[in-house]
Amino acid sequence: MERQPADDSASRHVGLGPGSKSNQTPLDEATIRMMAGLTLGSPTRQRQEAATTASAAAPQPAAPPRECKCTPLPMAPPPSSEQPNAAATEAGAISKILIIMSMEVEAMPLVHKFKLVEAHGPESTFPMGTPWVRYYGKYKDLHIDLVRSGKDNIFGVDSVGTVSVSVVTFAAVQTLKPDLVLNAGTGSGFNAKGANVGDVYLASEVAFHDRRIPIPVFDLYAVGARKTFATPNLLKEFNLKAGKLSTGDSLVLSPDDKEMILKNDATVRDTEGAAVAYVADMFSTPAIFVKAVTDVVDREEPTPEAFLANLMSVTTTLELTVAKVVEFISGKRFSDL
Amino acid sequence: MERQPADDSASRHVGLGPGSKSNQTPLDEATIRMMAGLTLGSPTRQRQEAATTASAAAPQPAAPPRECKCTPLPMAPPPSSEQPNAAATEAGAISKILIIMSMEVEAMPLVHKFKLVEAHGPESTFPMGTPWVRYYGKYKDLHIDLVRSGKDNIFGVDSVGTVSVSVVTFAAVQTLKPDLVLNAGTGSGFNAKGANVGDVYLASEVAFHDRRIPIPVFDLYAVGARKTFATPNLLKEFNLKAGKLSTGDSLVLSPDDKEMILKNDATVRDTEGAAVAYVADMFSTPAIFVKAVTDVVDREEPTPEAFLANLMSVTTTLELTVAKVVEFISGKRFSDL
Repeated sequence: MERQPADDSASRHVGLGPGSKSNQTPLDEATIRMMAGLTLGSPTRQRQEAATTASAAAPQPAAPPRECKCTPLPMAPPPSSEQPNAAATEAGAISKILIIMSMEVEAMPLVHKFKLVEAHGPESTFPMGTPWVRYYGKYKDLHIDLVRSGKDNIFGVDSVGTVSVSVVTFAAVQTLKPDLVLNAGTGSGFNAKGANVGDVYLASEVAFHDRRIPIPVFDLYAVGARKTFATPNLLKEFNLKAGKLSTGDSLVLSPDDKEMILKNDATVRDTEGAAVAYVADMFSTPAIFVKAVTDVVDREEPTPEAFLANLMSVTTTLELTVAKVVEFISGKRFSDL
Repeated sequence: MERQPADDSASRHVGLGPGSKSNQTPLDEATIRMMAGLTLGSPTRQRQEAATTASAAAPQPAAPPRECKCTPLPMAPPPSSEQPNAAATEAGAISKILIIMSMEVEAMPLVHKFKLVEAHGPESTFPMGTPWVRYYGKYKDLHIDLVRSGKDNIFGVDSVGTVSVSVVTFAAVQTLKPDLVLNAGTGSGFNAKGANVGDVYLASEVAFHDRRIPIPVFDLYAVGARKTFATPNLLKEFNLKAGKLSTGDSLVLSPDDKEMILKNDATVRDTEGAAVAYVADMFSTPAIFVKAVTDVVDREEPTPEAFLANLMSVTTTLELTVAKVVEFISGKRFSDL
């Protein structure tokens, strides 16, 4: 096997010790190990399927343009923008929506707005020991479940990030069987891409920016770019902005994160979206992403006073926008969105 | 609110644009937003509980020494080293083990070794659309489930990383109800901490190195350090090494990753362990981590030929060691491990 780096980033040295300052080293051993796993394949039936899927996937751009009506890849679940789930389509109007949120302060105004009731104990549908909190209720023609990640069992802070949100999304979609997933929250915007404080975005695509695996095909898997469910009428109705969302677990962006965010062509970044999309796609459940911009990370920061004022008003904007979005969805079919 | 950085890393600028080269900027707005969420609290009963938990958690070291018999924190599930699940304890011997692996090439030798059978369709217990593969069988007194993350639905490569493994671990522990989780795989070692190619480690603790949230308490949550289930007799029996394991989604380590790995005092790093531990702890299911070292990232790399020879032999070593560990566990109580 040739030890050529897959791209520039692969040539970075992965050493940790004092003698590891060189930037000359090509692919490290762990990389080759993973490549070996890919190329040596496996002794089961999956090998052939994997090879077929991988080769079909490889030439596809990581982030196809929104208009692209691509043919689904073999074995791939349809992107959430392509195929709403069967139950909802047959029934006509969308009847069940699942709102996923990580921060309690952002979730509670919506709980109150829709007069949702907290589900306690087994009624939550979640296993004992999980910190997740479920609220539910009816709003017009829509059954609403709002699930937040809850407070970490050990540290007591909101369970932010991709690991927590992927697990709670899995459990909630599996048991609550929504027609549509709505991931809502605040995030940072990039002014160079047109974002301003107080803007609310509907994500057109999502991707990860902190999973660097510079091996062909693994690199695309790691970035995990996928289209969201397209809602052109919703965008128009409320004059919302559309933009790409990039997700990573760190609040402080490293130079590598920034580089990947640029590659992802992102307008907004958060700490959950791409993980929610990954899990929703497992169930072929359409997902949309409403992200309100609290701060613009590529422009001079406001004073603390100005930021706190922003924070209050943006949280309110998020609440009002999600409420309008839910109201708009009520009584509609997927094709009306 | 004072806009003081929580620590040095908080002072890094999070800007992305061309004008964002300054290193002078203190906490960005997203950070303050999260702090506001922490300090402003919430309108529900969770607020008080969270505050209690957080304040109790705050003074505790992120990675307490292994010998520490700490009192469980309020609301916290017991660390996996403290309390095996009730069923296993009552029954005496451990009767069900769940082996979680991400790479097919690493998993299949064990499937063959234990003559495990692949569970198809609903028998897998997993929802349609998930790529996860379950094998099961009986070995001596032990029921074995081996679950691998499977090939990504879109890209066909092994579904490596924390998002995938956290969801499959959740689904598998929830439905298969193991007494013990064993996460096995290969990883990189740090020679400065005594690791050599071919060594097999039992992780004494796990933590994340790519979740940087420099806000008090959130920082500890993000690192997510937790003790694993202690197995002193197992260590002695096979002369295995004990060391801390650090987990992150990138194969190529950034300078930030390296800094966090040093802080985590890690001897081995992988791309799954800490996520498996996080989910296992939700169920209070004890978890152990067997990691074989394929490469040492802080020493001169071997020739490609030498590495490929290492790879083959280390995969075999992993297989043999996991087999011995499973054999050792069979017929034993938790207190015998």
